[in-house]
Amino acid sequence: MAMAQNPNRPIWLHESNRSIQVIDQRLLPHELKILTLSTVDDVVYAICEMVVRGAPLIGVTAAYGVYLAGLSAPENGYASYFEAACQKIKAARPTAVNLAWAVDRVSAAAASASSVETLRRLALAEADAICRMEVDNCRRIGRYGLELIRRIAEKKNGEPVRILTHCNAGWLACVEYGTATAPIYAAHEAGIPIHVWVDETRPLNQGARLTAWELGRAGIPHTVITDNAGGHLMQHRMVDAVMVGTDRTTHTGDVANKIGTYLKALAARDNGIPFYVALPSSTFDWTLEDGVQQIPIEERNPEEVTLVQGLHDGKIFSVRVPPETSPAANYAFDVTPARLVTGFITERGVCNATKESILSLFPDKISKNSN
Amino acid sequence: MAMAQNPNRPIWLHESNRSIQVIDQRLLPHELKILTLSTVDDVVYAICEMVVRGAPLIGVTAAYGVYLAGLSAPENGYASYFEAACQKIKAARPTAVNLAWAVDRVSAAAASASSVETLRRLALAEADAICRMEVDNCRRIGRYGLELIRRIAEKKNGEPVRILTHCNAGWLACVEYGTATAPIYAAHEAGIPIHVWVDETRPLNQGARLTAWELGRAGIPHTVITDNAGGHLMQHRMVDAVMVGTDRTTHTGDVANKIGTYLKALAARDNGIPFYVALPSSTFDWTLEDGVQQIPIEERNPEEVTLVQGLHDGKIFSVRVPPETSPAANYAFDVTPARLVTGFITERGVCNATKESILSLFPDKISKNSN
Repeated sequence: MAMAQNPNRPIWLHESNRSIQVIDQRLLPHELKILTLSTVDDVVYAICEMVVRGAPLIGVTAAYGVYLAGLSAPENGYASYFEAACQKIKAARPTAVNLAWAVDRVSAAAASASSVETLRRLALAEADAICRMEVDNCRRIGRYGLELIRRIAEKKNGEPVRILTHCNAGWLACVEYGTATAPIYAAHEAGIPIHVWVDETRPLNQGARLTAWELGRAGIPHTVITDNAGGHLMQHRMVDAVMVGTDRTTHTGDVANKIGTYLKALAARDNGIPFYVALPSSTFDWTLEDGVQQIPIEERNPEEVTLVQGLHDGKIFSVRVPPETSPAANYAFDVTPARLVTGFITERGVCNATKESILSLFPDKISKNSN
Repeated sequence: MAMAQNPNRPIWLHESNRSIQVIDQRLLPHELKILTLSTVDDVVYAICEMVVRGAPLIGVTAAYGVYLAGLSAPENGYASYFEAACQKIKAARPTAVNLAWAVDRVSAAAASASSVETLRRLALAEADAICRMEVDNCRRIGRYGLELIRRIAEKKNGEPVRILTHCNAGWLACVEYGTATAPIYAAHEAGIPIHVWVDETRPLNQGARLTAWELGRAGIPHTVITDNAGGHLMQHRMVDAVMVGTDRTTHTGDVANKIGTYLKALAARDNGIPFYVALPSSTFDWTLEDGVQQIPIEERNPEEVTLVQGLHDGKIFSVRVPPETSPAANYAFDVTPARLVTGFITERGVCNATKESILSLFPDKISKNSN
């Protein structure tokens, strides 16, 4: 299958309509392998083990996972089976709000079904709608972010606009375009010279593995750096803007994103460099007020810290770096307080990191929020 | 040789007095290998390739390197041979000020020699003196730093004092005790419960490889974390103090240290956590005023970023993480401005990060400084 060899999306529905296929992002950039997910357990595994990752993609995968739950639901008692499967998918990972949001949306769309057949049809339609919507959201984020980059470029006399990004908020984390990368792709397409500093993003190196791979495929100039380097670059005026994605952002503007994002936000603030967060509205949490205190931060297997995976002699190996007897800890996310964020780039435009500014773009969320 | 099997120092003079031996720190913690350095070229290689590293150890190695230059100096024309060798050693790496300081000190001590024999004797005596002095400095740093830890411990009701450190400023970076680790070892010996957060310290992982190994050998509780994690830990009150070493600190208080230190200093400031820098006076630069603008920052081979070394199946391998086509950059140090530093722990006591406070501990440097 040609698409499987060189896909431009990280996820698609199999032509049989009975499974989804995803890029196994654990093996990139060294191997492009496609996995087929046919059951709820497959979907939970793929989310837990980070075969798929990135808030929007977790949401889309979960949405199709709910559809797969419908496929395997028995004709008698499908409702309770379906409900249990939804809960299971929602529990796969704690931080990205898109997960629960997508499951709830597909589940609600299918709730009225009076037969398992209808439930399947409604669930698939809703999962497809979420997928299409996220593609559209990312395209719009790109358009609004492009204007920000264009304004920086105007002051640079043809010198490249240098953007630092952390982790991967590219199309691999979404469906198309990406969130933080959407403005970068749009600027590149518009002929604005761009250079991207790619934080390697320990422990799982999503920057060095995934963002570098995406940018390389698109022909966008980039340089991989250690997560330690960004402060130095900003101090020496080698960064024009920071753009990152997010796994969950409170409607008060606190940003949960890959561990280490907070450190870059501090450095950006210390050096007067704008720090933008790109996100679709599905990543806003309309209920929590205090991101630092309230967003659950996933702790993952310490082996993700102690074992580093890469290519040696054409094969993928993991090597252990610290002594075997040294314990490690693996906090997967941190929260950047709203006060350090210059602005949010959303599908409805750019806003400040305040409740008022966010809700002015999303007035339809106000009633939900005051619940 | 028993010492070679399980040394408690990273460097010693061979019993023949004709070479020095060092731990090859590139292979730790997976292999404890001793290298013999017999020539100036050996010493330059060991410093460049980071067989030895850490500002005080670079200084001590360079000091013995000058002695080795004397050993191979011809009887006729030894002075110019010696001078050229000193320049070669000084050029090995740019950032650590101890390198030039130690070379100049041994060179000056031997300058009066009226024969190559005398030069050799004077150079060895001075290199030995520098080595002894650095051991003594680190012991004193430990004593002063212990008081800081004791004061934190008094408020903790027996709970461990949690110290975050970056890179390795342990005995492997010095000769004994270390700089940033000296207070930790002293506190552990004094029965104060301690827990150390060990930043892995990309790209060369001196934290995960060296600091974790040192602390493990000493039975000090510690946890390896990614460089990205420290901000999150500080935000959640899981760090009581940050203690790091330095490669060069201006007499105005700006601190060059392993890349990423600045990010931890920002997080410490943002969370009201004390940020201490431990250093012997040999690491102060008494001439530069503005560390951020003036301290030369070494750029090293990008392969140190793209290739990660570790153990697989009992053997040491390097694996490549990013795509082969993605370039990388490798800035080895950054500079933490004085305004972010709570205090310096020196062999003469603790002072603030201001010119006045530093010079009040080192009034003997004032004349040099006003040159």
